[in-house]
Amino acid sequence: MAITPEPLTREAFMPFGDVIEVSGNTAELINQGNTQKYSNLAKLVADGEGRISVAIYRSKPVQLPFELRILERHPLGSQAFFPLHNRPFPIIVALPCATPGPTDLRVFLSNGKQGINLNPGIWHHYQLSLEQESDYLVIDRSGAGNYEEFSLENPVILKF
Amino acid sequence: MAITPEPLTREAFMPFGDVIEVSGNTAELINQGNTQKYSNLAKLVADGEGRISVAIYRSKPVQLPFELRILERHPLGSQAFFPLHNRPFPIIVALPCATPGPTDLRVFLSNGKQGINLNPGIWHHYQLSLEQESDYLVIDRSGAGNYEEFSLENPVILKF
Repeated sequence: MAITPEPLTREAFMPFGDVIEVSGNTAELINQGNTQKYSNLAKLVADGEGRISVAIYRSKPVQLPFELRILERHPLGSQAFFPLHNRPFPIIVALPCATPGPTDLRVFLSNGKQGINLNPGIWHHYQLSLEQESDYLVIDRSGAGNYEEFSLENPVILKF
Repeated sequence: MAITPEPLTREAFMPFGDVIEVSGNTAELINQGNTQKYSNLAKLVADGEGRISVAIYRSKPVQLPFELRILERHPLGSQAFFPLHNRPFPIIVALPCATPGPTDLRVFLSNGKQGINLNPGIWHHYQLSLEQESDYLVIDRSGAGNYEEFSLENPVILKF
C-alpha cells in the first residue's frame, strides 16, 4: 500500500495535535507595538516524573519512495517539532489505537513554516526530511518510560 | 553611555541562561542513524501556577543606534527565544540586581543560528531585531504574576 501527503491544516491535524504557525492565528501587540505575539500555539504535556526539554534534531534526508516500517509513540508527553530549514517536510501519524494498520496512517505536508506538536500517545514515524540535512527545534518530555514502538506487518510506501 | 555587542558564547552567557545551539555540543545518534539529537539545550522553568507554552513573536526591525530605556524580567519562569530567520540579532541582559545601572548591561550578538534561554529574574530588553521583520519561536511560562519592568534613569545607546 502507498500513501501520499495531504496539506497540513489545523483542522485536519486537530485529532493528532497542534499546528504551530502564525497563519490563521491572531496576534497581540506587545513591546511598544514592535512585536506581534502569537501565543499558546502548542499544548505541551509532561506527565509523571518528566519535564519539558528543548533539543535540536539534525536529520539526514531520505529518498522517496520511502518504506514506512516502524511507528513510535510517547505515552507520557507531547512532542513538538519546529523546522529551522523553511522547506516542506512530511509528518506521518496515526491515532492511538493498539495496533495501527496501513489505513490508519495519515501523512501531512508542512509548508516549511509550520511546526507541529503531537499529543501524547499519537503514533508517528520518526521525523523524515527531504533533499537536504534539516534541523528541527524539538520540545518534548525528557524522562524514562516514554517510548513505545510498533512494527507494521507490511511496509507502507510513502510517495509524493 | 553606549554599549556594543560581544559574541554569544555559552561560557560568557552562562550567568544569564543557556545558549541553544548545535555547535560545541555532542549529539546522540537516533532514528536508525538518521538523526543527530542534541538534547537538554535549555533549562525551562515555570514556577507557581504557570505552565510552559509556545509562541511565535514577529518583531519589527529597529534602527541603530537604538536608545535602551526600559528593562523587563520574568521572576517565575525562564524565557527562550529561537530565531526563525537565520540572521544576527542582539540580546541585552543584566543580572537580577534590584536597580540595574548602565554598567550592568551586557549585549550579546547571536549569529542567527543560536537561540537563548533566559533564567528567571534576568533583566533584559524586549527582543530587538535588525534590518527585517523577524520571527522567533518563544518558549516561556504563561500565567499571571510574571512581569516586572524597570526604567533606566538615563538611556543607554546600543550601537554596533
